[in-house]
Amino acid sequence: MEFRLATGISILERTPGSMRALLAGLGTEWTTATEGPDSWSPYDIVGHLIHGERTDWIPRARIVLEQGANRRFAPFDRFAQFRESQGRSLAELLDEFARLRAESLATLAGWRLTDEQLALEAEHPELGVVSMRQLLATWVAHDLGHIAQTARVMAKQYREAVGPWRAYLPVLDR
Amino acid sequence: MEFRLATGISILERTPGSMRALLAGLGTEWTTATEGPDSWSPYDIVGHLIHGERTDWIPRARIVLEQGANRRFAPFDRFAQFRESQGRSLAELLDEFARLRAESLATLAGWRLTDEQLALEAEHPELGVVSMRQLLATWVAHDLGHIAQTARVMAKQYREAVGPWRAYLPVLDR
Repeated sequence: MEFRLATGISILERTPGSMRALLAGLGTEWTTATEGPDSWSPYDIVGHLIHGERTDWIPRARIVLEQGANRRFAPFDRFAQFRESQGRSLAELLDEFARLRAESLATLAGWRLTDEQLALEAEHPELGVVSMRQLLATWVAHDLGHIAQTARVMAKQYREAVGPWRAYLPVLDR
Repeated sequence: MEFRLATGISILERTPGSMRALLAGLGTEWTTATEGPDSWSPYDIVGHLIHGERTDWIPRARIVLEQGANRRFAPFDRFAQFRESQGRSLAELLDEFARLRAESLATLAGWRLTDEQLALEAEHPELGVVSMRQLLATWVAHDLGHIAQTARVMAKQYREAVGPWRAYLPVLDR
């Protein structure tokens, strides 16, 4: 499917509600569970989504849009949430993510991007030349990937508990 | 993690809301998209969850609980939704799933299952002897697996649109 702004936004605007539906009020046996060492819990994932709103999607889109002399993105810190979420409740993080996402989408809507602007390019520090269209499509796919990860991490907590049904549940061994 | 009834129910009661948050009001370019031939769309997945409420989880739990002469489960029809969802809107299906799930959980709560009852066994047509505890854990993991699948199927629609970022998004090639 080609990226279209309205179609992509229809996912972006749902993600805070999806994470809230999955996680709000749930016990820590689910929300802090991981897939093993060096993997993320649902709580960590919400912190990562917050960091993306602050430093990744809109800030990078602004770099592409402005077409300044330096169009190289700053590297994204994939571990910021371990520092920034400290001491905060999951409920607080879900609220903050919803607020930041609403702000991001208001900024995006305010730009009223044209097809020409969606074709503008910048430089990713590792991937090379990327376009505004690719950046926004990645924002959408990144959201959906982390929703899938959140559900998968929780499913895996019952890998043993399901007994022989494990053979029918590929999510438990993915 | 060992299966505990209250912990498992905390997921089961959220699933209709999670599917609704992900899908309600979304365009058909997302809700009827698949991962390719013989794979399921988000619309198909909701129909499958409905069929599970009608014929799988509580009906099988009843067979285990009653410990009758024939404790063998009927095979589950994994393709019933292609027949049963025909002509129905996604909004209708989401409502029906929420209603059926609430009924299932009311039935489950009414049983007030003891540890002894959670250890009761029956026979799966392919997997052999299974326990009530394993059946209920599977219900939970099955929900979470289909939530993960729903998000993954939608993410994959942007597999090409993300350009070089595909290398950073494992969900697109899973």
